[in-house]
Amino acid sequence: MSEPITSKRGNFAARSLDLEAGRVDMNHGGGGRAMAQLVAELFQAEFNNPFLAQGNDAALLPSAAGQLVMTTDAYVVSPLFFPGGDIGSLAVHGTINDIAMVGARPLYLSAAFVIEEGLPLADLARIVASMARASREAGVPVVTGDTKVVERGKADGLFITTTGVGTVPEGIIFSGDRIRSGDAILLSGSIGDHGVAIMSAREGLSFNAPIESDSAALHDLVTAMIAAVPEIRCLRDPTRGGLAATLNELATQSELGFVIEETAIPINPVVRGACEILGLDPLGIANEGKLIAFCPPEHAAMLLSVMQAHPLGRDAAIIGTAGQDPRNFVRLRTSLGTERVVDWLFGSQLPRIC
Amino acid sequence: MSEPITSKRGNFAARSLDLEAGRVDMNHGGGGRAMAQLVAELFQAEFNNPFLAQGNDAALLPSAAGQLVMTTDAYVVSPLFFPGGDIGSLAVHGTINDIAMVGARPLYLSAAFVIEEGLPLADLARIVASMARASREAGVPVVTGDTKVVERGKADGLFITTTGVGTVPEGIIFSGDRIRSGDAILLSGSIGDHGVAIMSAREGLSFNAPIESDSAALHDLVTAMIAAVPEIRCLRDPTRGGLAATLNELATQSELGFVIEETAIPINPVVRGACEILGLDPLGIANEGKLIAFCPPEHAAMLLSVMQAHPLGRDAAIIGTAGQDPRNFVRLRTSLGTERVVDWLFGSQLPRIC
Repeated sequence: MSEPITSKRGNFAARSLDLEAGRVDMNHGGGGRAMAQLVAELFQAEFNNPFLAQGNDAALLPSAAGQLVMTTDAYVVSPLFFPGGDIGSLAVHGTINDIAMVGARPLYLSAAFVIEEGLPLADLARIVASMARASREAGVPVVTGDTKVVERGKADGLFITTTGVGTVPEGIIFSGDRIRSGDAILLSGSIGDHGVAIMSAREGLSFNAPIESDSAALHDLVTAMIAAVPEIRCLRDPTRGGLAATLNELATQSELGFVIEETAIPINPVVRGACEILGLDPLGIANEGKLIAFCPPEHAAMLLSVMQAHPLGRDAAIIGTAGQDPRNFVRLRTSLGTERVVDWLFGSQLPRIC
Repeated sequence: MSEPITSKRGNFAARSLDLEAGRVDMNHGGGGRAMAQLVAELFQAEFNNPFLAQGNDAALLPSAAGQLVMTTDAYVVSPLFFPGGDIGSLAVHGTINDIAMVGARPLYLSAAFVIEEGLPLADLARIVASMARASREAGVPVVTGDTKVVERGKADGLFITTTGVGTVPEGIIFSGDRIRSGDAILLSGSIGDHGVAIMSAREGLSFNAPIESDSAALHDLVTAMIAAVPEIRCLRDPTRGGLAATLNELATQSELGFVIEETAIPINPVVRGACEILGLDPLGIANEGKLIAFCPPEHAAMLLSVMQAHPLGRDAAIIGTAGQDPRNFVRLRTSLGTERVVDWLFGSQLPRIC
C-alpha cells in the first residue's frame, strides 16, 4: 500500500501474483485490488468458465428443468495434500457425490476459501488447479466463489466450503425411509482407503504398499446404476463415520435393522493391515469415492453387474440385507460365524479427515 | 465414548446438549451420534423446515422457473457478536443481498459451520437462533448444512459459509457492463455503519451515541425498485472495500468514470466522528445493508422516491453520475468544490469485518 498509485489499471497489470515465492496476506481478502488480482490471476484463470467470468455478486445461470437439489460441505482436511488427492479435489468430489446420492445430476459448484495468512501462494495455486481439474473432469463448473483471509493462527492453512446445485427429474426420490425389509445392500468397493491415507500422511507412516485416498466423483457411476435399475431405494456415500455410521443412520431413518457379512466387505489388505497396527476399525473410517445402495432383492444381481462394469465399481459386492428389527441394529456376521452389533460411535475415530 | 452403549436410541435420548455450560468438542464434527444430536437439537430445531428435515445428503427442493442464480460467501467476522447483529444474521443477510443484487428472488440458503473446539454451545445456539430469525424474517429457508470442528487454535471461534440460490425471470440482467454514460448513481442510505460498529466492538471503543451495524436483507427493497423502474442497469452492495472499492470495480467493468458529490453521500454524524478519530475514510468502509443503483437519468427521481418510501431506503440519495473516462476513475467532488480521485485500495482498511 506504500507505493504511489498512478493508475489502478497500469499498476494492476504491472504486478502479477508471485506464485513461486509469494504468500497470502491479509490484503488478499480485503476486497481491494489485491483480492481482484488473486481472483483474476488464480481463480478465474483456473476455473475459467463464462459464469464465473460475469464478475457480478451472483452467477446468472441457465434455467434448469426438474426439481432442484442443493448440498453444502465444509472441508477442513489436515494435511491439505495427501496420497490420492488434496483438499481441492476432495471438496469437488465430495459435493458432487452428495448431489449424486439423491439421484440428481450435479450442475454447478460454488467455492468459498478461508485462508490463513501466510499460506504459500504456490500451495493455494496447486490446490486451485487440482480443484479445477476435478471440476473439469466431472463436467461441473465452479460458477461463483469467495475468498477471506484470517490472521496467522486463526485458521489452519485453508478451509474450503463447496456447495452444489443439481436437478433430478420429478418422481425420483432416493431416501433412507424408502428402504424395505428384504432389500439387498450393495457396496461399490473397498472401504477405509481415504481415512487411512490421511492418517498415514498426518503421522508420516508408510506401509509396504502405498495407500491412496479413494476420492472420486461418483455421479457417472450413479447415472449408469439408475439407468439399469430405477428401482434403487437409496444411495449414500459412507464418508465421516464410515460404513458403520452411515448404516446406523439409515437403519434409524428406515426403522429397520441390517445384517452385513464381514467376508463380503472388500478391504484393501494394506488398509486392513494398517488398521490392525493403528487399532482402527475399517467400518468406522471415512471413504470419499464409495457408495452403498439399497435395492429390492430381485434387482440386486443386475445392479451389481452394472456397478462392476464401471471403473469406480469394479470391486462392488452385495454385503448384506435389510430386515425387521425394532432396535434398528446394524449387525455384522463375522468370518467365524458369530455376530456383533456395529456401534454408531459418539464421535469419530479420526478427526479432520474431510 | 467411554460409557457402554446399550441402545443407541435410548442413549441418544438420554443425553441432550448442554446449551448452558457445554462446549463444542471434536465429537460434534465426527459424523457420529454427537453430531447427529447437535444437528437434531440445534440446527434442525432452529431452522425447522421440511427440506432440512429430509435428512439426506442433499436437500430435494421444488423445481424453479426462471434462470438460476447462485452466490456464496464465507463469513469470518471478528468479534462474532457486535452491535446490530452477529455472524449468523450477517451471513444470512449478506448472501440474500448478493442474490438480490442481480435482480433475483432468493429462494434457498445452505450453511456450513467450521467451529473451533471449545466454542461455548450457548454462543453457537445464540448465533444459530439469530440466523434462523434472519432467515424466517427474509422468507428464505436454510435447507441444507454441514458442521466441522477443528482443534483449539486452528480456527477463530466460528466461520460460517452461506450459499444462496435464487431465480430471476429471463431477460432481467443487472450487470456492471450495462452502465451507460449519463446514468445516475443512487445510494440507499448512510455508509460506514457496519465497519465502524465492528471496529468499535473489537477495540472496545464507545462514542457519545451507539453505532450499530446496518446488516439487513435488501431483497424486499430491490423488488420494489425493480417493479417501479425496470430500467435499472446495475445494483451492487458496497460491502468489503466500501463504496470506494465497489465504484472502482464498476468503473472498470463499465469502462466509464464516475463523479460523486461528497455532500450528497449520507453519513451518520457519529460514524463520521469515529472515522475522524480512527483515521478511516468512510468511503472505504464496509456496509451490510446498503446498495448502490445505476439507472438512466430520466428515471432517477422516480427510483429515488421508491427507495425513500421503503424503511431500508429512507435516507437514499442521488450521489453522482457516470460519464466517459478512459482512465475509469472515480472522482469525488468535495464540499469545498475541489475534486479528488477515490482510490481503489490494495487491501482493506479493516480486516475481518464480514
